[in-house]
Amino acid sequence: MDKTDRIKSRDIPEGFLLSVTEAGIKYSDRTDMALIYSERDAVTAGTFTGNKVKAAPVLLDIKKVRSRDGRAIIINSGNANACTGRKGMKDAEQICRKVADGLSLSEKKVLISSTGVIGLPLPMKQINAGINNLLSGLGDAGAEDVARAIMTTDSFPKFISRRFRIGRVDASITAIAKGAGMISPGMATMLCFILTDLAVEKRTLQMLLKETVDKTYNLITVDGDMSTNDTVLMMANGAAGNTSLTNESRGFNKFSKVLFEVTDELSRMIVRDGEGATKLVSIRVRGAKNESDAKRAAMSVATSPLVKTAIYGRDANWGRIISAVGYSGAFMKEGLIDISINGVKIVSKGLGTGRDDEASKAMKHDTVSIEINLKLGSSSVRVYTCDFTEEYIKINAEYRT
Amino acid sequence: MDKTDRIKSRDIPEGFLLSVTEAGIKYSDRTDMALIYSERDAVTAGTFTGNKVKAAPVLLDIKKVRSRDGRAIIINSGNANACTGRKGMKDAEQICRKVADGLSLSEKKVLISSTGVIGLPLPMKQINAGINNLLSGLGDAGAEDVARAIMTTDSFPKFISRRFRIGRVDASITAIAKGAGMISPGMATMLCFILTDLAVEKRTLQMLLKETVDKTYNLITVDGDMSTNDTVLMMANGAAGNTSLTNESRGFNKFSKVLFEVTDELSRMIVRDGEGATKLVSIRVRGAKNESDAKRAAMSVATSPLVKTAIYGRDANWGRIISAVGYSGAFMKEGLIDISINGVKIVSKGLGTGRDDEASKAMKHDTVSIEINLKLGSSSVRVYTCDFTEEYIKINAEYRT
Repeated sequence: MDKTDRIKSRDIPEGFLLSVTEAGIKYSDRTDMALIYSERDAVTAGTFTGNKVKAAPVLLDIKKVRSRDGRAIIINSGNANACTGRKGMKDAEQICRKVADGLSLSEKKVLISSTGVIGLPLPMKQINAGINNLLSGLGDAGAEDVARAIMTTDSFPKFISRRFRIGRVDASITAIAKGAGMISPGMATMLCFILTDLAVEKRTLQMLLKETVDKTYNLITVDGDMSTNDTVLMMANGAAGNTSLTNESRGFNKFSKVLFEVTDELSRMIVRDGEGATKLVSIRVRGAKNESDAKRAAMSVATSPLVKTAIYGRDANWGRIISAVGYSGAFMKEGLIDISINGVKIVSKGLGTGRDDEASKAMKHDTVSIEINLKLGSSSVRVYTCDFTEEYIKINAEYRT
Repeated sequence: MDKTDRIKSRDIPEGFLLSVTEAGIKYSDRTDMALIYSERDAVTAGTFTGNKVKAAPVLLDIKKVRSRDGRAIIINSGNANACTGRKGMKDAEQICRKVADGLSLSEKKVLISSTGVIGLPLPMKQINAGINNLLSGLGDAGAEDVARAIMTTDSFPKFISRRFRIGRVDASITAIAKGAGMISPGMATMLCFILTDLAVEKRTLQMLLKETVDKTYNLITVDGDMSTNDTVLMMANGAAGNTSLTNESRGFNKFSKVLFEVTDELSRMIVRDGEGATKLVSIRVRGAKNESDAKRAAMSVATSPLVKTAIYGRDANWGRIISAVGYSGAFMKEGLIDISINGVKIVSKGLGTGRDDEASKAMKHDTVSIEINLKLGSSSVRVYTCDFTEEYIKINAEYRT
């Protein structure tokens, strides 16, 4: 990317500076480290993996987001710094310290994220050199550059910037994510960094982030594996000049909507770019007895390898869908259930309607939408998943070699 | 197979007669129906799928095994008669009636199993013609013939016959199974028919079958999908002439051991023949706090697509193993865990030992054995799974088309 493009893509909120570098951690000829820096204290919130095995940077960040403010996030791809014991924790601390020193910040205000292979020590020599480059290059990069630097098996960079108005104040938000594999809910999935120049109260920001993640990243699945490194960090630095937002502010609902839309769109991008995926699949369960049943049924369908391979094969194999609902643990009555695929009603009251060929044809689209109505109550949920392909196997059988 | 081979393979317990036929339900040029007939009343036991969506034959059999005795089992492949509503139930009942009439039995004593595609009505014309052939051909088939007739995507027939002695009585047992896909525990997986000429009390047989299934079929997984048709039926017809066995009989432990060995071996055959599988994978979790934690951790590793693709790629990727233990919900401490692959200790106290290359080499074997020690208690479990390959995707993307 030449300089002009890079400047064009630098559409980020006020008061944030970004940089990226090629540290050579695992890959060659590509960027693999990024630094996000807020010129002023930013209220910081985070959600993290539910995996009992947490990478060192996750353990550090969980502590750090308890403080009100953060200033910087240092990120690397190519190595997850997970299952690396005391050495891994020391490395993560040392990285934060070096960034803090370089920016004359308290170490507490530097957050850290890593993604990549589990169980290998970080190559600290490369990383230290990388940090020097990141510090001296601050301001040279845009959102897309950071999105590219944090990719692992992602096939395209994932970032969104939006401008919006709260009262009389113009504000903006940028969200940058990486996904691809080990995507499963139960936690903020993958890495995501959300920056806004709006001022937001600490408690409000944390609550809002959690709610948003529950409705977006926690309702997507690629392969059902839950990562050791899942992290969503959000920084609100107040450079827009508004009065700090609380959940009682007039602008709260609008901001909440913007945050949801941005995160929802990123979550779809992550699923569409699921390892080996050829289709984005949306699964909506309606008429469930309660919300947890709705989620259970939808996730069971979304993670079923038989359903996911049938979608890949463009086969409207509703037997596999109804079977996955049946073993989900959700309350259901076979004789009530309706199922539509891309608008074609394929099951009515538990029985096939004979429109399989029509539905299979409708599945040629890039996006497959499965609607399941349990007709037992009023709860509904929508989850995103992708199809399951030979390419997924290939990517994951060869990932380390 | 010529006549001589067929007779050679007719190594089944006394008093049972088998037949198979080519009904043309879905496949051509292969057998797809089988009849198992006991010349005398046989004490009958069964375990069935835990899926809330149960095929018509499963619903019928659940009722029928409540009676003490059975005499016949009629089986078809190519069509599961699942999600077929009232028509499906009527068809299943009509099949049982026709078999009962042909053999001059009470309809209650005829059990039924179907396997194959979900949601299509049975082709009753072909099935009725098939039943006529089965009735007139009784005695012409051996265990292998039945095993072949019930195959769907299985690549080889699965059956075992064993002779054993209980006290002064010579007895024998034959077990016939089909597996391949939709293999997951929580229930007796797939179809399995176990015949013995031993006499066993009803309650003892049911209890013993359930215990055995819990330790074998309920601890295997191919793809984590649970079928609508899973059925294990066992018949003990007493032709061997022993005094009917109870759990207090002297021969009980021996019979229990024989049943376990036969079922365990069949369960391994099912996993080895998992759709697209190239490796049989045994996962043993030791040192768990309790049995349910041990099972949770082992099943989480056994169903992780990332672990299963790594095994396919012969990559001793222990990070994926430890991560799957981490999100299993089992109590664990990262800093305690040890992991060995085919005898090579690859993780010690949560950290890599650096023997990844050695372990990857050891994974060239057909059988991969993963040992995980949580070092928190004394509970252990062993589950079988297989690797995850492009071939699995291909089989399941193309199954119906």
